[in-house]
Amino acid sequence: MEGVEAVLLDLSGVLYVGDAPLPGAREALGRLRAAGLPVRYVTNTSRSTRADVAARLARMGFAVDEAEIFTAPRAALARIRARGLRPFLLIHPGLRPEFAGVPTEPPDAVFVGDAGEAFTYAALNRAFRLLVDGAPLIAVGRNRYFREPDGLSLDAGPFVAALEHAAGVEAEIVGKPAPAFFHAACADLGVAPARCLMIGDDVEADVLGALGAGLQALLVRTGKCRPGDEGRLPPGTPVADDLAAAVELALAAGSGP
Amino acid sequence: MEGVEAVLLDLSGVLYVGDAPLPGAREALGRLRAAGLPVRYVTNTSRSTRADVAARLARMGFAVDEAEIFTAPRAALARIRARGLRPFLLIHPGLRPEFAGVPTEPPDAVFVGDAGEAFTYAALNRAFRLLVDGAPLIAVGRNRYFREPDGLSLDAGPFVAALEHAAGVEAEIVGKPAPAFFHAACADLGVAPARCLMIGDDVEADVLGALGAGLQALLVRTGKCRPGDEGRLPPGTPVADDLAAAVELALAAGSGP
Repeated sequence: MEGVEAVLLDLSGVLYVGDAPLPGAREALGRLRAAGLPVRYVTNTSRSTRADVAARLARMGFAVDEAEIFTAPRAALARIRARGLRPFLLIHPGLRPEFAGVPTEPPDAVFVGDAGEAFTYAALNRAFRLLVDGAPLIAVGRNRYFREPDGLSLDAGPFVAALEHAAGVEAEIVGKPAPAFFHAACADLGVAPARCLMIGDDVEADVLGALGAGLQALLVRTGKCRPGDEGRLPPGTPVADDLAAAVELALAAGSGP
Repeated sequence: MEGVEAVLLDLSGVLYVGDAPLPGAREALGRLRAAGLPVRYVTNTSRSTRADVAARLARMGFAVDEAEIFTAPRAALARIRARGLRPFLLIHPGLRPEFAGVPTEPPDAVFVGDAGEAFTYAALNRAFRLLVDGAPLIAVGRNRYFREPDGLSLDAGPFVAALEHAAGVEAEIVGKPAPAFFHAACADLGVAPARCLMIGDDVEADVLGALGAGLQALLVRTGKCRPGDEGRLPPGTPVADDLAAAVELALAAGSGP
């Protein structure tokens, strides 16, 4: 790391797990702010609206402006509106308000978020039949799982893989690791990607994604991070035990060239 | 094709769709028998027991001996017993009787069939957590979809792909296109694989699978077969409009060297 002028943070597994802030996370965020390093939040989370994400952060003691949060569903919404698509929404009930007002009938596209229990055979089959008929497949990400208080749970990625395998298509990923998603947050910060540091607990979406988009990246060992994950990183990729340790490294790197 | 001495038949999409025999299928099977060509049935179907498959064929007017039917779930059962595994069964309720008596608690393996509506998020998540803990993943096949009277429907393959993606593992496939599955049927016929002709409507599982196992193979345009499927076949692979036309070709080839 060197010359870090801004930080992008993943949410679940970095700031909190379930409804509990991770130890030291609030203080670490305070240190970033006190040091004058601007922050944006980039998340593929898709079980609730961006407003709900902000409210949940506030309840856990993280004072975050909703406009600083970049969510994959909002990126999907922008893309769907720009192309005038009418998506079949394979999403969590908690995300439905985000798509209020988007025409959906008759569907000519499929959008997949982390639908959780709404991933029923019937819903997946309906999506599959639309894809076979040529509808584009838009998805929040390929995230494999996330950490819940009682263990790891399936994220949207496995179901995206299922639909891709079934219909012989490739999904358009709108969230991490899509470069455009990272770049939108960097542009909002007004900082070149090479001067932005992505901090996350997901090797593929956060770390490899950010590196592929020209950002710097750091893996934290909290959240879904498991033994063996570090072996999948390019040599030299920084790793920290938690957000507090990551912030120390970032602030030290901020004084670089 | 040349020197065909025995025939392996897929079931759904070749003999019937839903509960209806395909036109001419019964007569075509009769012609095979009249010509003295022995037949075995090889299916990845996993929504019912082998006994139920045989009974269903009988109801549709196909007189087939249950012992001539090779099903992927029976192959799985043999493997699970041989290894003394206690599988978490992600299967259709109609298949449960096939696994009666197999110990399942505490689970140390995952077996996936075409569970249909039983593919719930909760069940998939339970399977995923077992895989993360090191349990082997055994699956009937990678079949993407099958034809139902109202359209194409998701088979087991997409859900196998989902679990593989989630847990970063590779499934052991016990049904088609696993060479051992084809070879068991050939051995039962007492005919060398190179002299056996596989007839099916699935490019990957039936045709490419059989060719990979050293059999001859033919694609029928009934069932799930869709425009474009033929383009995925190796050059020279025979294709027929239906089973009747396929049998004509097989009988002609039987007189070869």
